[in-house]
This record gives sequence, structure tokens and C-alpha cells, in this order.
Amino acid sequence: MSAAEASLAGAAMVASFDRRERLQAMLDFEAALARAEARAGVIPADAADAIADKCDATLFDLDALDRQAAVAGLPTIPMTRMLTALVGGKAARWVHWGGTSQDVIDSAAMLQARAGFNLLIDDLREIGTACAELAEAHRATPMAGSTLLQQALPISFGLKAAQWLALTTRLLQRVTALRRDGLALQFGGAAGTLAALGAEDGLKVMALLAEELDLPAPDLPWQAQRDRIGEIAGGLGTVAGGMGKIAGDIILMMQTELGEVGEAPADGKGGSSTLPHKRNPVDALAAATAARLAIAQVPVLLNAMVQEHERAAGAWQAEWQALPELFRQTGTATAHLRQAVTGLQVDPDRMRANLEATGGQIMAEAAMMALAPMLGRLPAKDLVTRACRQAAAEGMDLKDVLAADPEVALALDAAALDRVFDPLAYLGAADTFINRALAAFRAATRA
Amino acid sequence: MSAAEASLAGAAMVASFDRRERLQAMLDFEAALARAEARAGVIPADAADAIADKCDATLFDLDALDRQAAVAGLPTIPMTRMLTALVGGKAARWVHWGGTSQDVIDSAAMLQARAGFNLLIDDLREIGTACAELAEAHRATPMAGSTLLQQALPISFGLKAAQWLALTTRLLQRVTALRRDGLALQFGGAAGTLAALGAEDGLKVMALLAEELDLPAPDLPWQAQRDRIGEIAGGLGTVAGGMGKIAGDIILMMQTELGEVGEAPADGKGGSSTLPHKRNPVDALAAATAARLAIAQVPVLLNAMVQEHERAAGAWQAEWQALPELFRQTGTATAHLRQAVTGLQVDPDRMRANLEATGGQIMAEAAMMALAPMLGRLPAKDLVTRACRQAAAEGMDLKDVLAADPEVALALDAAALDRVFDPLAYLGAADTFINRALAAFRAATRA
Amino acid sequence: MSAAEASLAGAAMVASFDRRERLQAMLDFEAALARAEARAGVIPADAADAIADKCDATLFDLDALDRQAAVAGLPTIPMTRMLTALVGGKAARWVHWGGTSQDVIDSAAMLQARAGFNLLIDDLREIGTACAELAEAHRATPMAGSTLLQQALPISFGLKAAQWLALTTRLLQRVTALRRDGLALQFGGAAGTLAALGAEDGLKVMALLAEELDLPAPDLPWQAQRDRIGEIAGGLGTVAGGMGKIAGDIILMMQTELGEVGEAPADGKGGSSTLPHKRNPVDALAAATAARLAIAQVPVLLNAMVQEHERAAGAWQAEWQALPELFRQTGTATAHLRQAVTGLQVDPDRMRANLEATGGQIMAEAAMMALAPMLGRLPAKDLVTRACRQAAAEGMDLKDVLAADPEVALALDAAALDRVFDPLAYLGAADTFINRALAAFRAATRA
Amino acid sequence: MSAAEASLAGAAMVASFDRRERLQAMLDFEAALARAEARAGVIPADAADAIADKCDATLFDLDALDRQAAVAGLPTIPMTRMLTALVGGKAARWVHWGGTSQDVIDSAAMLQARAGFNLLIDDLREIGTACAELAEAHRATPMAGSTLLQQALPISFGLKAAQWLALTTRLLQRVTALRRDGLALQFGGAAGTLAALGAEDGLKVMALLAEELDLPAPDLPWQAQRDRIGEIAGGLGTVAGGMGKIAGDIILMMQTELGEVGEAPADGKGGSSTLPHKRNPVDALAAATAARLAIAQVPVLLNAMVQEHERAAGAWQAEWQALPELFRQTGTATAHLRQAVTGLQVDPDRMRANLEATGGQIMAEAAMMALAPMLGRLPAKDLVTRACRQAAAEGMDLKDVLAADPEVALALDAAALDRVFDPLAYLGAADTFINRALAAFRAATRA
Repeated sequence: MSAAEASLAGAAMVASFDRRERLQAMLDFEAALARAEARAGVIPADAADAIADKCDATLFDLDALDRQAAVAGLPTIPMTRMLTALVGGKAARWVHWGGTSQDVIDSAAMLQARAGFNLLIDDLREIGTACAELAEAHRATPMAGSTLLQQALPISFGLKAAQWLALTTRLLQRVTALRRDGLALQFGGAAGTLAALGAEDGLKVMALLAEELDLPAPDLPWQAQRDRIGEIAGGLGTVAGGMGKIAGDIILMMQTELGEVGEAPADGKGGSSTLPHKRNPVDALAAATAARLAIAQVPVLLNAMVQEHERAAGAWQAEWQALPELFRQTGTATAHLRQAVTGLQVDPDRMRANLEATGGQIMAEAAMMALAPMLGRLPAKDLVTRACRQAAAEGMDLKDVLAADPEVALALDAAALDRVFDPLAYLGAADTFINRALAAFRAATRA
Repeated sequence: MSAAEASLAGAAMVASFDRRERLQAMLDFEAALARAEARAGVIPADAADAIADKCDATLFDLDALDRQAAVAGLPTIPMTRMLTALVGGKAARWVHWGGTSQDVIDSAAMLQARAGFNLLIDDLREIGTACAELAEAHRATPMAGSTLLQQALPISFGLKAAQWLALTTRLLQRVTALRRDGLALQFGGAAGTLAALGAEDGLKVMALLAEELDLPAPDLPWQAQRDRIGEIAGGLGTVAGGMGKIAGDIILMMQTELGEVGEAPADGKGGSSTLPHKRNPVDALAAATAARLAIAQVPVLLNAMVQEHERAAGAWQAEWQALPELFRQTGTATAHLRQAVTGLQVDPDRMRANLEATGGQIMAEAAMMALAPMLGRLPAKDLVTRACRQAAAEGMDLKDVLAADPEVALALDAAALDRVFDPLAYLGAADTFINRALAAFRAATRA
Repeated sequence: MSAAEASLAGAAMVASFDRRERLQAMLDFEAALARAEARAGVIPADAADAIADKCDATLFDLDALDRQAAVAGLPTIPMTRMLTALVGGKAARWVHWGGTSQDVIDSAAMLQARAGFNLLIDDLREIGTACAELAEAHRATPMAGSTLLQQALPISFGLKAAQWLALTTRLLQRVTALRRDGLALQFGGAAGTLAALGAEDGLKVMALLAEELDLPAPDLPWQAQRDRIGEIAGGLGTVAGGMGKIAGDIILMMQTELGEVGEAPADGKGGSSTLPHKRNPVDALAAATAARLAIAQVPVLLNAMVQEHERAAGAWQAEWQALPELFRQTGTATAHLRQAVTGLQVDPDRMRANLEATGGQIMAEAAMMALAPMLGRLPAKDLVTRACRQAAAEGMDLKDVLAADPEVALALDAAALDRVFDPLAYLGAADTFINRALAAFRAATRA
Repeated sequence: MSAAEASLAGAAMVASFDRRERLQAMLDFEAALARAEARAGVIPADAADAIADKCDATLFDLDALDRQAAVAGLPTIPMTRMLTALVGGKAARWVHWGGTSQDVIDSAAMLQARAGFNLLIDDLREIGTACAELAEAHRATPMAGSTLLQQALPISFGLKAAQWLALTTRLLQRVTALRRDGLALQFGGAAGTLAALGAEDGLKVMALLAEELDLPAPDLPWQAQRDRIGEIAGGLGTVAGGMGKIAGDIILMMQTELGEVGEAPADGKGGSSTLPHKRNPVDALAAATAARLAIAQVPVLLNAMVQEHERAAGAWQAEWQALPELFRQTGTATAHLRQAVTGLQVDPDRMRANLEATGGQIMAEAAMMALAPMLGRLPAKDLVTRACRQAAAEGMDLKDVLAADPEVALALDAAALDRVFDPLAYLGAADTFINRALAAFRAATRA
């Protein structure tokens, strides 16, 4: 990975929600509206052509648009005025015909959301691919499984990667479902009745417009009924949370004292302005940071569902910033995590060393389960707990403490005790779980 | 509605997430685990029966449990110890066999979520039914449609209710989908490998346990992969937001100055401690309040997706409070909104009076659209804008100002101008939208 | 107010937190560091001059800096490299001497916060001035006081404005206190020990650097102890909430059905893309929108206080975006609210008409309190409550219903009843409260 | 610490905000109101005595009160009705005289907040005391300072504890300031005019009531101006964030692989339901959990500042739950952190071993700074960076690599190089900072 590539993480999503793309999405709506109205016989066909011809964001003065929008309180007012001027002639009178700000802004947001979903899907597929490779490659790489940041049981690094993969696969499925089912054309006129076009023409244009924009036609306009936005917010927040989880694992495993993984190095990456030896997490950290910032927009959008009557005074307008920001930050999280897991450097030796650092205490459950059929679960647990404390206090291996216990000796011979303390023999169904995660990912990405 | 009924709004959900129900859900898991293990031949059948027999929350000292759980940091530790003591005898040794706190707590949370979904679904169906009746009854009740809290266009109150209905229908579908697809058994042992039971028995028990609890069996344990919780959080937050929207509309329409609707009266409801004349919104307000408090838990749960390694140190534990609170508040919102819309008192006369309060300015778009084919959209808009200002300045009806305009006179005769100013003639596709909302609700509830 | 001015609302704050200003703040730190070190005899004086000379953001390639910072994970790494290159010669070796990213970024954030506070203070003073004028001018403008969006008691619009003023005054005092006490130099080196400079030089430079930057010197570096940021977050969130309150009142009073106030008109302001008659709230709405978005950053910053060890992996980095965004949105809220209250158009006739719309029911408490000395408080309340219901049911004035009640007749003669129903006679201490609000504002702004 | 004590962490705060305490606070207001009105000559003195006599929460049926409050939408309505019945006789007519729900509920909230502040202050003082002891005891206990979870520079554990102490001291000062300046009586009547009592009596009662309750008298009622609540929210959120920071450090240091500290053991504490060897963080984890849940209420309260007109429809009601929850969770965080730091077990040997685990790389900055005067800062950094990579690649100590470098040899002799690699010689101003933290804490607690 070159420095130039690294600098691009998240850049596609950010660009996809900048002011020019937003304007273009609104203009795409205006062009599609004109075409749909021409097909419905509401406006002349050549007017539609003339309008569509000028629906090109590069023809607009973005600074002037922003200034006038700030005064007007709505970007659509100067936008339709500028578009009308660009079109000129007789066609100009048909610009924004039967249109309203709500329809333009909401449908444009849906077009942008679709583009955003595509970028997320692309990243999630690549994250999945990288995790799948790690899962496959490290089936037999034992490491400490950790709960509450205490070593718990042995797992394999393959299983950890498979869990990341299973998570990523489900997130991929959710975003794919949102792209398919979560979008909808907004078209209702000023108060959601289509009164300006009349019922018959209005409904006809509604159907054709959905076709033109390739957006699902809703039963009703959804002016102030923002459950779709709420659902997108929840979905993206979940993606962000998932990215934060994987990123967090990487950051923790990269701790100097653990040293189990490292990010792929790149020129100028991960240094310090004063510490020459530093190899900081960069991409995992950027993903974790973006995940937090993404999630902060979710309650904004959910609270903004409380919209007054047929259009809100404040809540809708908050969406205009919160939804793009949610996409930008979520996309930044996926893009950086993609970089973090692609080419992740794994150190099986450090994993093994960490696993062995407690003198076998990590195998305590194995010992308990081996003793439980004879002693009962709780007595076995109590016996092993005492042995663990003795081992810790006397700096002994747990196996040696147990071997010296007469009750244990009755239940387990030396060979059995050896098996108890072999981490690779205590991975349970890890391999099956890895297989399942791989299969689910393949199925999800074949689709 | 009696006062006693009113006092019950949300009580079922609150009760469903109290500490006894939580304990019972954990005990349901223990009983099912024992039964599944007996079916798999892992533990004796009579032990399973003996264990299941004691998995009854009424046998437990909840205060003692809470105290010991606070010390232990986990409710499962004293719970399994108490259960072991209750079971006694030889069966006691098989209590919690191969179990772990993660499995108990997460699966119990899923069982409680299912109960919570059922309550939400029940409320949403009733809200839908009430809205459907309002939509049907008020198809021809014109009122002002309002955007940015300014009168915009005429709508019918039936359409407003139909929009509430369409929103409720979609929320109902989402919760139904969550109940069907969003739940999953958690079963993985201490670090998600099923090592304590071994691969073969572990996987067998996993499948049987899912059957026993009637929970979908996941591909993999989801110890620290909390996307399912994130998805539930997003879903409930969306329900809460939707309730807030409808509640907010009711509160605004109840404003003294508008007086368009009122909540069904009940003894002791909606008064003031000092103002004799007050008729406050009570249920809509309680719904709006609960919606805010529900949404506040969503980012907690999304941020809590960032869980360390195989079990989190803090984030998982935050779920234990945040998820029940999210259900409680969402359920309080649906329960109160159900009361608010059931028997909502509608005042068509006040709606009409408010619609007419602006001297016809609310028909300005109708006038513009009538003039636009002759003048072009923007010139027509400018002409009507000027007429609106003149009408406001001179205290005239907009129709009279327009009638006096020579350009208008050329385009519209008196009869045409009369039609322009008839609100019922400018409802567009409102009736179709009402029909669609009714049909969608019927389809969703038939299913 | 011209359109051009309107478009500037919030622009100063946005500019103050753009990437160039951020870089300049970091360079101001580097220049001050060099000067402080020269004064302490740690580096040569001419090196300090040479360095300070190049600490000018206009000399830097911002795009290149952003690209390299994305790779490095820290803006300070390319910044110090570029600065070193710009300085050149022998002085170059003293660039960033004993510096560390933490110190540069945090101290720069404090410098930017100070600039942000100044802008907020300026806006709050102007908001206060406008509210003070409204409070003074409308002492005797009666209107309905409203609770739970139901008319409650008469107040004066002067009192409402005085309450806005009192709120603004307290916010002004808090921001002023934050500017004075809430900032602090960060200087500690890589892990907060000043080891690179050594104790003696380090402490000397720390004191001189605080002097150079005119920032309070803290007792200790505050690398990962972010209470100061938390306090700023709480303070700005409170300002945002306060702006939202005043903006919300304006939006509600502007409702078509109430029409009590209006924003000062401006060309191109407040229209609709399709509704010729619309006069939307623009500035109040923009303030309310920004307030929501500001508040969303507060929990990000509070959660980001949980920073690992001597510097966080994710939380600190989230601050870099969240704190500027909090300032931007808060500043947008104050700037737009300033525009909304400056030249607010007040319609005393509509206020009076709304006050009288309930046939005297708004005077119900006055009647109750007049009767209470004879009847007791609760019996009087019950009597008046019955009278209110009768008046509403029969479309009568409350006064007439009461006049016909024999119990009332015993207690109050006709003249007394007339006084009870005079709203201006039931304003209580409104005038005193207005005076107090004016006095407090004058005291706060004189300081 | 006994198990019983442990179970009490946070219990005092939880109890302090339960429904009985809330009722008692409201009754304290009613009693004080009666007494103040008697002193002002507004009601008879014996009535005040009779009322105050019944203002005792143990006399009330809490379940009935809750039920009726749910119907009424306000707890004050049934409360005043029940109190009136309890008082009986002639005095009953003076119950809640001139009172209103706003005044009762808000002033009661302030009384409860004061009690909450006292509990927080007590915990923070004890946390500070424990941290001060750790700081003093471990001045010369070197450990790795860590940034971005990578070892950065040596620090002492004393410095880390001193940083916790400095943070705690500032939080203590903030809570103390909130207790002193952040509270205020609310007294304004139904719409904030004191109309029911009239200006003269109203203002007199206001002053006397503040005296009775020992709450600061505000200039104006603050019905819907909730900046004080916002400020408390920000303050408590900052305390919660600070607790989360210290708790997080402890959890990270307790990681099995680091093992630098441990919580004081207690019977039944920190185990696992299946892992015999586990020694989980319990109190630090509970503190971290509560901190998250506390912070979630802050945006609820800030958003709830947007209150309509003279009393909000939803936002105020949300405060009733959010503010107590914020206190409960913050108090739970402080109480558990107090337990975590009191008797914290420190392992200087593990700290030393972790510090030495990188073969001297943690001294890289020391080497760079030693070389920089000769080579310039950036060339020295580049040289040491190369040496770090070589040392890592070849498994060598950094010192040995540097010793072999001819450029280094010119600059530093063997003794100088030895000094460079002595961590205790590179602690900078750590000792001074410890002294300053101790002095600031002493000053803050003496006050």
C-alpha cells in the first residue's frame, strides 16, 4: 500500500457527499421529474429535454448557491431559479413543474444514500475477504481468548478472524438489504397531496419518476414520516459499531505488551513527532474514531423523526447535515478498517507466548470440566479455583499443583492431565465455526 | 377509558423487564440447557428434570441475589450457586453444565426481547386500528396542511391520520421482522468455542437448545459481535421516533389557539395543580417523553458494540441496563400513544376555521398552478406572491386581489377562480393515499 | 439586514475552525515554543526568530499536509517536517524542540476555543441587547402565557423577552467564565513528564510558553485528563440548548394560527419553492437546527474523556473533529438567533386576540384565587373547574358563568369580578422580573 | 472491604433518588412554602404548622400516588390532594397556596441535586485520598508510559496516580462549585409571574422560601429556561467521564498480559461462572459501565432545554427521569471507583518487567534528545528510528545498536549512553507534578 493509497481511505465517501454531488443529485431529480412529466403528457417532451440538458452541477456557481440558500433557508429555491435561468426560452416555464423542496431534497438524499451503500458494500466485501484469509490461515494458531480483558480460554486466531468475518458478513447483508428495501422516492408536492398536478397526473408522474430514478415508489409520500431515515441511521450505526469492534481488537492486540498483530507498514505511517521507536495503530485507530463520530449522528436522526405536521421546522433540516455526516464517518470507518485488515501482520509466536504466560491457568476450565464428572461441577470449580490461587501464590504451574492434589490424582492420570493442558486440544468447535463463517461469507457474496 | 386503565399504560412492558422476569428468563435458559443436554446424552435425564423443576424465579431471594451479584460483578454466579443449592442431591452437579454467563445472559436477553416485541406489536396494531378509523372517518374533513409550522396547502384530516397509519404499519412490519429474524440463541461457552462440552456434544446441544428455547440457532456464537443488539436498538429507536412524531402532531393540534383535537377525557386527567381550566395533553405528552428517553439508549447500545476480544469489559454490562430501558421506554411510548389515538376527539369546525383564517392565502399554490400554463411557473409564482403581500397588507382576501388583476382576468374567469379557492377541490391524490394506507395496514395485520 | 449579511450568519465561526486556522493555531504554538525556549536559554534566540518567521499557515500546502497527515495518523508529523524544511539552515534543528503532538494539538485547540468563545460572547451580547429592547418595549403588551402548549395565564411579551434575556445573560456569564478559567496550556512532552527538556528547563519553558500564548499554565500536563474539554462541551451544549429554547418560542409564535411575531424580512428569505404565500421562519429555524447538531457532539466529547493511559487511541482523535464541530454549530446557532431576535416583528394585536380567544378561561386561576380565601383553595378550584367546563360546553364567557353562580356572588361583586378578568391586573411581579433581567444584563455586560 | 460493603457501592445515591425521597423533597417544598407564607402574613401561622406537620412521605401511599400521577400527568396533583386530605380542618385550605407544579417539582429537584452533590463530593474526596497515597508511595516506581496503547516513555506509577488525583481534584472543585452556585429556588406560579400571590406578597414569599429551603433565590423564575439543569448535566457528565478514564486505566493495567495492578479481593468478587482462575475487574468495570450510562442522559437534558413558552410539553417531563438517572449513574461510578482505588494492589515488579520488555526502545526519545544538539532534531530522530528498526529486526537491545553506530559514538561515550538508558533518569518533572497534584488536592479539601 502506498502512502497515496492510504491517504484515500474514506475519500470516496467524503467526495460522494460533498456539495457538488448533493447538487447533482437534486438536479438528477429535476431532470427525471421533467422526463417523467413529459412521458405522462404533463409537459412538452422538448421542454423535458431542454431541462435535462442543464441538470449538470458543473454549470452552477456553488458559492452563490450556498449564499442564497442560507438566506432562503432552502437550497432548492436558488437552485430552481438558477436552473430556470440556464434553461431559458419556453422550456424554462416547465422547470420544477409540480415540484417542491421536500421532493427534491428527500429524493436526492435517497440517491446519495444509494451511492453510499455501494461504497460501504464494496468495503465490507473486501474486509470480509481479508478476514476470510486470516481465518483460513490461522486455524491452528492458538492464542488466548480474553474476556473482561482477562485471559479466559485458548482460542485460535483463526476463530477470532472468523468472528470478525461473521460480523462483517451480517453487516454486509444488512447494508445490501437496506440498498434493496430501504430506499424510496419522495414525491408528494408541498403538503403530500400531489395537488399541484392533480390526482391523476400526480400519481402517473409518481410512478414514472420512480422508474426514471430507479427508486422504489412508496405507497404514500413520506414528508414527515421518517422511519426510512431512522432505519438507515440504525443500520449505519450498526455498521459503525461493528467496525469499532474489529478496530478495537486490533488496537488491543497491537499493545506493546501483547504485540500479536501489526498494521501493514507504509512510508510515513504510524510514527510519532518525538518518539523514534513508535509503530502506532493508524488505520484501526482512524476506523475506531470514525465509528464514534458516526454513532453520534444516529440519535440526531432518530430524534429528528419527530417532525411537525407535513414538514418539520428544524428536524428535517438537521437531517441534511446528519445523514451525510453519518455516511461520511461510517464510510471512513469501513475504508480504514479495510486497510487495517488487509495485510494485517500476525505474530503467532507472540500469541503462543502470551497464551503460556500464566503457567497454565488459562486451562483451568479444562481441568474443571475434566474433574466435574467425578466431583460435580461446583466442587470441581472450587478445587481448581484453590489450585489456581496456590499456583499464583507460589509461582507454580497449575498443572503441577493439580498433579500434587490427591483428589485430582484419583480422577486423572498423568496422560489425561497432559491432554487437559494442551490448548490445541481445547478449541472445541472452533474449526466448525470457522467453516461456517467462511461458508456464510461465500454465500453472501455470491448472491 | 377508566383511570385505572390509563394508569396501566406501559406497565406491561415495565413489568416484563423487571428483575424477576429477568431472573426467570435466565432460569428458562438453565432449564432448557439441562433438557437439551439430556436429549444429547450429555447429562442424565432425571437431572434435567430436577433442574428444570427448580428453574422458577419465585423460589429465589431477589434481594440476596442482587447483593451477591453486585459483589461478583455478574448475576449468573450467585444465580447458579442458588440454583445448585435448590436442586440439591446428585442432580445438582449438572446445573449450568457447560454453561457460561455470556450464554445465560445473552439468551435470556433474547427471550425478554421477544416478549417485548410482542407487546410492541400489540400496541402498534391497536394504534393502526385507531388511525385507520380516523383516516376513514375524516376523508372529507379539510384542514390546513402545515410545513415549517406555517399553513401550506389544504389537506384532509383523513390524510394526516393515514400518514400516521402508514408510518405505524411500517413500524409494525419492522418489529415483526425483528421478532422473526433479529433474535438468536447465544451459546458458545466462556470464549465462544464450546470447549467445555467438546465440539461434537457442544454443537449438538447448541442445536437442541435453540429448539428448546424456540430461538434461531446462529452459525457462530456472537459473544462480542453485537450487531443483533445494534439492529434491535436501531429498530426500537425508529419505533420511538415514530411515536414521537404522532404524539407531537397531537400536542400541536391541541394547542389552545388551534384546538383541532383533544385526548379522550378521563377522571383526574390533564388538569393542573393550580389552573382550573386546563385540559393538558397527557398521553401524547407521555409518549413524546418516553420516545426521547428511549432514543437516548440507542447510542449507548451502538457504542457498546465495541466489545473487547471475546467479552467486553464495560460495554456488555452497559447493555444489561440499556436494552431493558430501551424496551421499557419504547413500550411506554407505544402504550401511551395507543391511549392518545384511541378515542381522539376531532373538531372539524376548528379545522375548517383555521383553514380559512388566512383569507385564502393557503390556496396560493392552486392559483399559481392555474396561472402557470399561461404565464410560466416562475412568473405565475411571482405574481401570486405579490398578490399575497398585497392581500396581507390591505387585509383583503387573496381571491379578491387576484380577481382585480388584469393578467389574472385574462387567464381565469370568475368560475375558474372560485374553483381555485375551493380547498376540497385541491386535495390531489389524498383519497388514493388514504386507500393505500388502509390497504397496507390490512395486509400487514392479516399476515 | 441585507441578504449578504444574512448569508454570513455563523460564517465567522465556521471560518475560525477551518483547516487553515487550525494549522495557524498549531504554528502559533510552535512559534511560541521556540520563543519560550529561547527565553529559557534552551535554544538560540536567532533560531527562535527564524522559526517564528515561518510559522505562517499561508506558506503551507494544505492539501499535501492533509494527505500526509492521513497516512501518519497525526497532522503534527508532516507539519513539523514542512516547517523544518521552510526554516532551513541551522535554525531548522531547533524546530519542535522538546515538542510533542499532544502539546501542539491540545494547545492549538485551546487557542481556537478562545477565538470561538469570543465569537459566542459577541453574539450573546447582541442577542441580549435585542431581548432587552423587546422586554422594555413590551412591558404592557399582554399575551397568553402557555404551559404544555395550553394557554395558562396572561403574561406580557415583555416578560417573555425578559426571560430570554435572563437566560442569555447567564449563558454569557458562563461563556465568559469558560474563557477566563476553562482554558489551559498543554505542555508535557510525549508522556507528560517533560523528560525531553528535563525537569528544570521543562518547567521553565512551560511557564514562559503559557505567557507567550496567554494561556493559563496548568499545575500538570492534562494529556489524557480531559475534564477541561468536558467542561467546555457542557458549557457549549448549554448555550446551544438555550438558543434552541428561544428559537423554538419564536417558531411557535410564528405559527400561522398564532401570528404573534415574525422575523425581519429580507430579499429571498423565507419563501417556498412552490408556495407563493409562505413566510417561513428562517433564522430561528437555522438556530434550532444547529442547536441539535451541536448537542450531538457533547456526548462524543464526554465519552472521549475515557482516554487510555497517557494518550488515547481513538478518543483524543475524535475530539479533533467533535470540538470544532461543537463550536461551529453552537456559533451557527448564536449567529442565526442573533438575526432572528434583532428586528423581530411583534404583533400586539394578535397577542391580545389570542389571549381573548378562550372567553376568559385564561383568567380561571385569578377567579380561583379570588374565591379561595372564602372557600378554601381546593373547593374554589373545583368550583371554577366546573364553571370552565360549563362555559366551554355552552359557548359562554367564563365571567358570565361565574357571575350567575350564587356562591360566587356572595364572595365577589361585579366590580371585583371585572378586576378578576383584567389580564393586565394579573401580571403579578412581571414588571419586577423585567427590571431584574435588565439589571442583570447591564451588570454582566458592563463587566 | 467486606462483601456487604461492596454491595453498597452506589446504593446511597440510588436510594437518594427513589420515589420516596422524591416525594419527601416535594413535601419539603410544601412545608417550606407554608412556613414562608406564614412569615409573610399570607396564610395563618397555625395553618403552616398543621401543613408542615403532614409533609412526611411516610404518611403517603406511594402506589396510589403513582397511579393517580400517571393519569393526571403530574405527581403534584394527587400529592396536593392527598396532603390536603391529611391536613384536614381549616388549615387544609392553605395547602399549596399560590403553589404550582413547576415550583414544587423544580425546587424538589434542586433539593435532591444538593443531596446528590454531597454524595459525589464525599466519594471524590475518598478517591482523591486513595490516589494521593498511591502517588506518594509510588514516586519511584517506574513503569511504561503509554500513548495510543504503545509504550512511549518511562513514567512513574506515582505520576499516573497523581494525574488521576489532579483530575479528581478538579472534578471535586467543579461539583463543589455546582453545589454552591448551580442551584436555585424555582418559584413563579403557573406562568412565572407570581400572579396568584400578587407582586408584593409573591416577591416576599419568594425570598423567605429561598431562606427556608436554603436555596439561592434567583432573579427570575426559570420555568422554561433550563440552563441550570444543562450546567448540572455537563458537570455530572464530566465527572462520569473522569471516572471512566481512571477505571479504564485500571482495567487495562489489570490485563493478564500486563498484570500491573489488581483490585482488592473480596469474597465472591470477580470470579466467573465457569472459569476457576478468573480475577476480573469488578469495581473498575462497574464504574466504567455507569459512566457510559450517565453520559447518555446528558444530551437528553441538553435537548430538553428546548422548552416551549412558559412550560414544556415533553422536555420538562423527560428531565424528571433523566436527571435522577444521571445522578444515580454518576454516583454509581464514583462509588465503584472509590472501591477500585481504595486498596488497589500494585505490582512494581510487573511494571518494571513491562518497561524492560522492548529492549530499551522505550528510551528512544532520550537517545534522540541526547543526539539532537549535535545532529539536529530531525536527523537525530531519523538515526534513532533506523536503529529501532534494526534492533527490532535483529532482536537486539537498542543501546547495543546505538553503541555500534559511529555517529553516535562521536556524540556519546559509554557512560553517557548508560545514562540515556536509565528510565529513572528520564522522568523529567514527574516529581514536581506529583507534588503539585498533592498540594492542589490538599488545598481543595481544606477549603
